[in-house]
Amino acid sequence: MTIDVAILGASGYTALELAKILLRHPNARVVAVTSRDEEQPAMADVHPSLTGRLDLRCEPFDPDTIAAKAQCVFCALPHGASMAAVRDLLARGVRVIDLSADYRLRDPNVYAEWYGASHADTENLEHAVYGLPELWADEISKARLIANPGCYPTSAILGLAPLLAAGDLIDPKGIIVDSKSGVTGAGRTPKLMTHFPECNENVEAYNVGWHRHTPEIEQILSDVSGTGVEVIFTPHLIPMDRGIFTTSYAPLQRTVDEKQLLEIFRDFYRGKPFVRVIEHLPATKDTVGSNFLDVTVRVVRQRAVVMSCEDNLLKGASGAAVQNFNLMFGFPETTALL
Amino acid sequence: MTIDVAILGASGYTALELAKILLRHPNARVVAVTSRDEEQPAMADVHPSLTGRLDLRCEPFDPDTIAAKAQCVFCALPHGASMAAVRDLLARGVRVIDLSADYRLRDPNVYAEWYGASHADTENLEHAVYGLPELWADEISKARLIANPGCYPTSAILGLAPLLAAGDLIDPKGIIVDSKSGVTGAGRTPKLMTHFPECNENVEAYNVGWHRHTPEIEQILSDVSGTGVEVIFTPHLIPMDRGIFTTSYAPLQRTVDEKQLLEIFRDFYRGKPFVRVIEHLPATKDTVGSNFLDVTVRVVRQRAVVMSCEDNLLKGASGAAVQNFNLMFGFPETTALL
Amino acid sequence: MTIDVAILGASGYTALELAKILLRHPNARVVAVTSRDEEQPAMADVHPSLTGRLDLRCEPFDPDTIAAKAQCVFCALPHGASMAAVRDLLARGVRVIDLSADYRLRDPNVYAEWYGASHADTENLEHAVYGLPELWADEISKARLIANPGCYPTSAILGLAPLLAAGDLIDPKGIIVDSKSGVTGAGRTPKLMTHFPECNENVEAYNVGWHRHTPEIEQILSDVSGTGVEVIFTPHLIPMDRGIFTTSYAPLQRTVDEKQLLEIFRDFYRGKPFVRVIEHLPATKDTVGSNFLDVTVRVVRQRAVVMSCEDNLLKGASGAAVQNFNLMFGFPETTALL
Amino acid sequence: MTIDVAILGASGYTALELAKILLRHPNARVVAVTSRDEEQPAMADVHPSLTGRLDLRCEPFDPDTIAAKAQCVFCALPHGASMAAVRDLLARGVRVIDLSADYRLRDPNVYAEWYGASHADTENLEHAVYGLPELWADEISKARLIANPGCYPTSAILGLAPLLAAGDLIDPKGIIVDSKSGVTGAGRTPKLMTHFPECNENVEAYNVGWHRHTPEIEQILSDVSGTGVEVIFTPHLIPMDRGIFTTSYAPLQRTVDEKQLLEIFRDFYRGKPFVRVIEHLPATKDTVGSNFLDVTVRVVRQRAVVMSCEDNLLKGASGAAVQNFNLMFGFPETTALL
Repeated sequence: MTIDVAILGASGYTALELAKILLRHPNARVVAVTSRDEEQPAMADVHPSLTGRLDLRCEPFDPDTIAAKAQCVFCALPHGASMAAVRDLLARGVRVIDLSADYRLRDPNVYAEWYGASHADTENLEHAVYGLPELWADEISKARLIANPGCYPTSAILGLAPLLAAGDLIDPKGIIVDSKSGVTGAGRTPKLMTHFPECNENVEAYNVGWHRHTPEIEQILSDVSGTGVEVIFTPHLIPMDRGIFTTSYAPLQRTVDEKQLLEIFRDFYRGKPFVRVIEHLPATKDTVGSNFLDVTVRVVRQRAVVMSCEDNLLKGASGAAVQNFNLMFGFPETTALL
Repeated sequence: MTIDVAILGASGYTALELAKILLRHPNARVVAVTSRDEEQPAMADVHPSLTGRLDLRCEPFDPDTIAAKAQCVFCALPHGASMAAVRDLLARGVRVIDLSADYRLRDPNVYAEWYGASHADTENLEHAVYGLPELWADEISKARLIANPGCYPTSAILGLAPLLAAGDLIDPKGIIVDSKSGVTGAGRTPKLMTHFPECNENVEAYNVGWHRHTPEIEQILSDVSGTGVEVIFTPHLIPMDRGIFTTSYAPLQRTVDEKQLLEIFRDFYRGKPFVRVIEHLPATKDTVGSNFLDVTVRVVRQRAVVMSCEDNLLKGASGAAVQNFNLMFGFPETTALL
Repeated sequence: MTIDVAILGASGYTALELAKILLRHPNARVVAVTSRDEEQPAMADVHPSLTGRLDLRCEPFDPDTIAAKAQCVFCALPHGASMAAVRDLLARGVRVIDLSADYRLRDPNVYAEWYGASHADTENLEHAVYGLPELWADEISKARLIANPGCYPTSAILGLAPLLAAGDLIDPKGIIVDSKSGVTGAGRTPKLMTHFPECNENVEAYNVGWHRHTPEIEQILSDVSGTGVEVIFTPHLIPMDRGIFTTSYAPLQRTVDEKQLLEIFRDFYRGKPFVRVIEHLPATKDTVGSNFLDVTVRVVRQRAVVMSCEDNLLKGASGAAVQNFNLMFGFPETTALL
Repeated sequence: MTIDVAILGASGYTALELAKILLRHPNARVVAVTSRDEEQPAMADVHPSLTGRLDLRCEPFDPDTIAAKAQCVFCALPHGASMAAVRDLLARGVRVIDLSADYRLRDPNVYAEWYGASHADTENLEHAVYGLPELWADEISKARLIANPGCYPTSAILGLAPLLAAGDLIDPKGIIVDSKSGVTGAGRTPKLMTHFPECNENVEAYNVGWHRHTPEIEQILSDVSGTGVEVIFTPHLIPMDRGIFTTSYAPLQRTVDEKQLLEIFRDFYRGKPFVRVIEHLPATKDTVGSNFLDVTVRVVRQRAVVMSCEDNLLKGASGAAVQNFNLMFGFPETTALL
């Protein structure tokens, strides 16, 4: 069986990664890519690495055209722009995996507070499924609309979920999430902060205390925990292309050792093909180019120090999106991802 | 007045930086450099960037020879090796600035515990002054032996000292120090971890929970605070040459806002030429190549989030060493450092 | 059909890339990996990115054991060490793809001159096929021993072959090959030149005038040309993990324009799936992670300026090796490589 | 004696480097900086590394105001914009060091051809002195207008001048200049080509056959040679902040060996403090942060292979500008540059 798919927002890095994965997917065929570029460039001109591999031109987005061509759409539009397109596609019976933030926050008021605009599609928002297969594979398989998780949230949530699911093991109000991300996470639009001579040979923190992934992390971890979780989230920009390293600190409320904590992680992720619970300290490089998230934990002065790594464009975006696609259409979860 | 100085351990990065700064110093003359290399290479062969600038060969270390030539010695030997040389030089009346860890920990038992060997020069250890001029300029000016601070401790201590000096402002037992360092901090000896294709495009944590700078940070912050300070310290390796970014998290015990915290920092560092209390978020790049430490603070969910940046080889090592040298010999503190 | 294969010399980067490609290959199964490490570590401990993916321990090389297990061996041993192993394997009927330089130079005297040791397996040397599928696919399909090309030679040869095959188009004695390579090309053994703070933020040339890939380039281009080709080859080390960019300059002996030259390239590579003749200027990044070589040409002051790019570990090593494997065993040439 | 100076075009990298050097200069005082930014930001907000070091706001450029304040102006405006400002300043008696390309090409027709606009100040163009102190120190000392050389030309010219000055040693029509530059050379305005994830981990050539530094190199080398020199110039972008490595290939017309060539270089640069003729292969890193140009030469197959390195922002721009300033105002040539 082959599913015809379209990618909206073709010019960015997540679209490129989607295209590369889907070209290897035996059950998917990319039939359309869209962008706002009025010149409708060939996809291979937008992304020269696709030369000779994907013979499509970027077309303007039209819901009828896309719905006529594709059974499933990967939406890589910016937040705000995404919800208009998604609504029109769902209305035409297309299943959608949305990589923007538009359907991640359950409460439209929280969305409005953090994204500075009211939500324009609250009806579909209610039915969106948060696309973290390690937590909600069943819901994903039946979903018509997937809110694909943010790159930072994936690393933080998968690092902390086992601890929060384990009863009163850690203090849900005292969690610190210190993340280090490669520069592709900031997108493909040139700006001073990501101009090579500015961010090369440099580390800086940004959006300290008000990064938009904070409420997303808190919402999902509260779901897992059954109680209100609060995190302090600090993202840092690292001079590398890809990779997120997240170091999370959580006060332990019971006396446990590393061995016990690792066992909790192993139990939690048993049978999940893309989370590797490891004993050595992780390194982003061991996950880059793959859909794996590597995670381990240490105990230091009565705190759990969790370290989790992923490729922000794969497990943190496009890889996870295809993982969701596989679940939605009944393909083996790892198809095209190993 | 010109002080004749020698540099022990000439092959490393801190020695190179010392040489470069001292070549610009109007009151210092490098008269000898030592290394264990039996071929006694020219310093410019060890560090080609010094070609035409410093015409000295590396000689084997001999305390009598060095004491006959130099009034002050910068010791850039590894810990363990340093204390033997330092003791012999002090005995000959030479003043020493030791960049190793050998004289930083006041208690020889703590040294033995963290460095895995008993201290061989406890007599001089008693009189060593911790060379952080922002805290102990007076003691430094009279010292015969300076324990030059570690690179991570400088960033952590200068970031937290104002808060700990301000009475019961933060909880001294709940501090987290999450540091990100460039690769020069790991020294110049090739190993797999610092082999380019291993650490480029990579972030990893290392020595989590047992890095040797932990007791150093705790000792000095306890001095500042007047009470026992405990920190969780996590160092990360970042793919860049130089720079340390330290993000410290401290639970606030009183309600204060950012403005008040910044005022505390400004008061604390008034008149200190190399600490810049800034309002914007710092970036390591703004300090690299200089002796400045940039620091700012935010309040997030009742925690002070302090961010401090420095060049690990300058303010974190050789720059601080020359700053100490200036104080010891009565030169303006900023000589050769601006 | 599944071919059982072994990888000799498991600790290096080419072995890792071989493992990753072969894990995706529907007709290959990695049944053994060897290394000299006496502790016989798990492959996933040597290369943590393979965690959970390849459950093999490194075993010492024994020709009987390997021959009993594997029908085909990828030899990623250093030159010199390779020929002993290869000879023993061929004697036991195993087909071998050798990634070292041991079987690339047809004349044992040239080998001795450039590699500083006499050749120990001249018998098999005679029958080795140079594994550049764009030039010798037929010979490769029948070969029992493939000399897999060097990374620099692949980029230089594929860039210049169309011009040299076109009669008297360029002067075969006046060719300059200026190459820029990422650091993985220097292998995985730590040394000062590839220590991160030495080669990061740095460009340098090395082995100018006597790099061992020079006679390899000249031999193959002379084969293509039918006359003695001479090149000046200058390799440069670039601060990136992967990628070779080769700029070749060849004096034109006839008046042609770019369009004509591009047509010559297109004709030459028609039907070759991994060479992309492009009109825009190439960039290494567009080939990294793939088995493609991108090439274009310009005319400047009566010289052809050819620019060719590849991933040095894939098209320049392990990707080409699997391409050869596919041809040898009758699988489609692109299997596991797209 | 203190010279009051102004910097026009304050927002770029060359302006920042000028400010840093001039802050260390005992005989210069930066009294004004200009930019088009209507908000007139503080220089330390434009370049945070200057925080606490230079207390000036960017003002709009007004020739009367600047002429009233400054005796010498460093013009770091883009080409085209520069000549209008320079003309107005010269008319008011201010001496100018122009870092743009506007006064480098002697022939206004050549300027028009390569820069796509006719020259608007041909009167001053006639009297401009090309600011390469190693060639024209006398003229520089008397000049009222210096055309500061381009970054690539400095490396190519200083690498080839000794050979071209030596009679018929090399063929002046057969020279190839293959340059590799860090990204600061492309300026500080964000664009896709210099967006971190595009140029990091990448090498590419650009403007092949038509880079604007070509006529500049040819003009100056023709001056040196006394005959018309032609070069093929190929610039490449390298993922590093700073540094240019230029590899030049020139056909030898006489039989000479490396020793003799090195002697020619040493003779040519005797007494020039910033050119280091070395025997080992150069590395950009050994010159970065300094005003040195390192150069060496090899003989390969009857060609001189010259390798020259510099910091593109220092010897290739702002360092050379201050070197010119020193000569113009009678200060020792190395002031503030060592």
